[in-house]
Amino acid sequence: MGARRVCTLPGDEKGGGHVSTGAMGAGPQSRLPEDERKARVALSRVGEPGGAGIAEIVAAHGAVEALERLVRGGVTVRGSVPEHYSYERLEEDLEHTERLGARVVIPGDGEWPRLLDDLPQPPLCLWVRGPADLDEVSGRSVSIVGARSATTYGTQVAADLAAGLGQRGFAIVSGAAFGIDAAAHRGALAVDACTVAVLAGGVDRLYPSSHAQLLTAIADTGAVISEQPPGVAPIGSRFLKRNRIIAAISCGTVVVEASLRSGSLNTATHATEILRPVGAVPGPITSMQSAGCHQLIREKGAVVVTDVAEVADLMGQLGLDLAPTKRGRTRPIDSLEPEDRALFEALPMRSHYDVEALSRAVGQTIRQARAGLGRLELRGLATTDGLDRWRKSR
Amino acid sequence: MGARRVCTLPGDEKGGGHVSTGAMGAGPQSRLPEDERKARVALSRVGEPGGAGIAEIVAAHGAVEALERLVRGGVTVRGSVPEHYSYERLEEDLEHTERLGARVVIPGDGEWPRLLDDLPQPPLCLWVRGPADLDEVSGRSVSIVGARSATTYGTQVAADLAAGLGQRGFAIVSGAAFGIDAAAHRGALAVDACTVAVLAGGVDRLYPSSHAQLLTAIADTGAVISEQPPGVAPIGSRFLKRNRIIAAISCGTVVVEASLRSGSLNTATHATEILRPVGAVPGPITSMQSAGCHQLIREKGAVVVTDVAEVADLMGQLGLDLAPTKRGRTRPIDSLEPEDRALFEALPMRSHYDVEALSRAVGQTIRQARAGLGRLELRGLATTDGLDRWRKSR
Repeated sequence: MGARRVCTLPGDEKGGGHVSTGAMGAGPQSRLPEDERKARVALSRVGEPGGAGIAEIVAAHGAVEALERLVRGGVTVRGSVPEHYSYERLEEDLEHTERLGARVVIPGDGEWPRLLDDLPQPPLCLWVRGPADLDEVSGRSVSIVGARSATTYGTQVAADLAAGLGQRGFAIVSGAAFGIDAAAHRGALAVDACTVAVLAGGVDRLYPSSHAQLLTAIADTGAVISEQPPGVAPIGSRFLKRNRIIAAISCGTVVVEASLRSGSLNTATHATEILRPVGAVPGPITSMQSAGCHQLIREKGAVVVTDVAEVADLMGQLGLDLAPTKRGRTRPIDSLEPEDRALFEALPMRSHYDVEALSRAVGQTIRQARAGLGRLELRGLATTDGLDRWRKSR
Repeated sequence: MGARRVCTLPGDEKGGGHVSTGAMGAGPQSRLPEDERKARVALSRVGEPGGAGIAEIVAAHGAVEALERLVRGGVTVRGSVPEHYSYERLEEDLEHTERLGARVVIPGDGEWPRLLDDLPQPPLCLWVRGPADLDEVSGRSVSIVGARSATTYGTQVAADLAAGLGQRGFAIVSGAAFGIDAAAHRGALAVDACTVAVLAGGVDRLYPSSHAQLLTAIADTGAVISEQPPGVAPIGSRFLKRNRIIAAISCGTVVVEASLRSGSLNTATHATEILRPVGAVPGPITSMQSAGCHQLIREKGAVVVTDVAEVADLMGQLGLDLAPTKRGRTRPIDSLEPEDRALFEALPMRSHYDVEALSRAVGQTIRQARAGLGRLELRGLATTDGLDRWRKSR
């Protein structure tokens, strides 16, 4: 709950049941916002954003009527945080948003990230700090998430993937948490790529506080966003709701390290539910921080990703980002015809064999063997003593 | 080629084409072995075991007639190693086998590993040193293979998997090479489990020579086997043919570490071709020694395996060896009902909130909230100051 005050609502009797939004309802009807944007801001206070209830009512009636129904009906959906809400509070919220240098983005706005519409419960609106056009950057983006208690391996991999994908024009979405999240944001910032931090609390609640500088850097170049109004504290259930936005606002999610109970598995589940690709980075089976990734691969159909190209392949547009098949170094003998390879294998390392013995050894005529030895010599694989006696080159 | 002598065949003119087995053919017809076992031993000298040619002729006509056809027809299939072969040589081979304490196992013998019959080119026979009944042990067995240039991580994992599977009654099959192979054999030996080494050369050619002691220990308790007659040198193409036996003589193959060009990928391919399960152990994506494993998972349908239970699940009999789903430690709040969880989240860490404020915060009646706080207190999650004011327990 942190610095948040629990208010006593006016007209709310002690021992009363549900929290009412009496203050707003008490004013003249004209004081309810007629404007879609204002209604969505107000709804974000009246109910808990990300909850099923509000999303359904808004989907059915639109935000303006949904707000009126909720307020006039004395219903609130925001269960866990009581709010003394009023029209004045709405104005305050809008002014506060402006003072923060933030903006409210709603569905229908040019920069509303349309990817979010795939969510069964899309955000009512987003508070956004930063210059990024969310719709544009989310169209080529990857969410990189993982354990807070990451290993050096994990943070290094997260930063490298983010930097490499950033250089390929992908925006990097994450949750600004310790460990993998922060490493991913930093990797993107390091190559001047766009990165988006999705917060569980308001965009003014830079959480964790030791990442205030990181979040400020993200807001300067990319975007810090939240479906929660300014001032709202990041508490448990809001992280889970936030995760669905991380999953939905990018083309796919990569989990770099995750213990078996990591919140990033929740993000991966959200991504799977809306049919977005999920990649998982493997790691040592002796590391509990990779166990969640291996479980995603074994049981949830996540794709093993081991480098930037493979992530791009998974996330990017077909054809444009196809990962090359990895190959080991080719050895000179790999490209030999079978007859020449047989000759090469029959050649001794130290002593010399004469061409007749070799020809018999491989079941070729002397003429065939001599031609083959010549080809091997050309490739630097066979050496002769000048008397038609041969050995392998060293 | 090592210590192997390239002989000049009697009656073989200089510049002649194919190697003949004139010495054997020259004797009276009665000197060709009528006995299936002897015919297969002789065929292993006349042709290169593991080659397509001999397997087909034997499959069509049986070993005795196949040998007669080859010898009387002056045909040899063993292309790369000429042999001065005779009936005396056959007797020598059989005596040498006996002197080595080895035996020749052929299809139809009680201990012939029937799993090998799934190969398109099964061995003609196997030379076996060691007490293991090959058919019995292969019925519950795992091949553990991988890079020669393994990392500490890889050899540790190979040894741990082999020991754990050995304790569950699995025999461990491998190729006695440096790195993963040796670690797997040693892991099995460490828990007195049965382990089988499949060699590319003869069972008297303990290769690599620095593993002579290891191979002797394997032969003392498990089995050292080869389709090559004693004395035959382990050379390149024989390792590839040997790999098909490793893949076929066990219930499935696990690759622990493999670079992108590792021979163990060849073993995995053989296993896949005869529909045996293939597991791959993931590792750091920064390790080239795990790149082949990741490729097997990404592109070849190999299953990620991270512990003994998962390997047993993949290899073992259905039901008997089912791996439990991994779970993280459960936290007390995970099992809370949603109402109690909301209460828990609303509780402050340091100050106390009174029950009325809390009830409003979570949208419950005071009675409901008080009951919930009581349940939290019972679980050690909430503490009261005695005045109906509550906070989280520390």
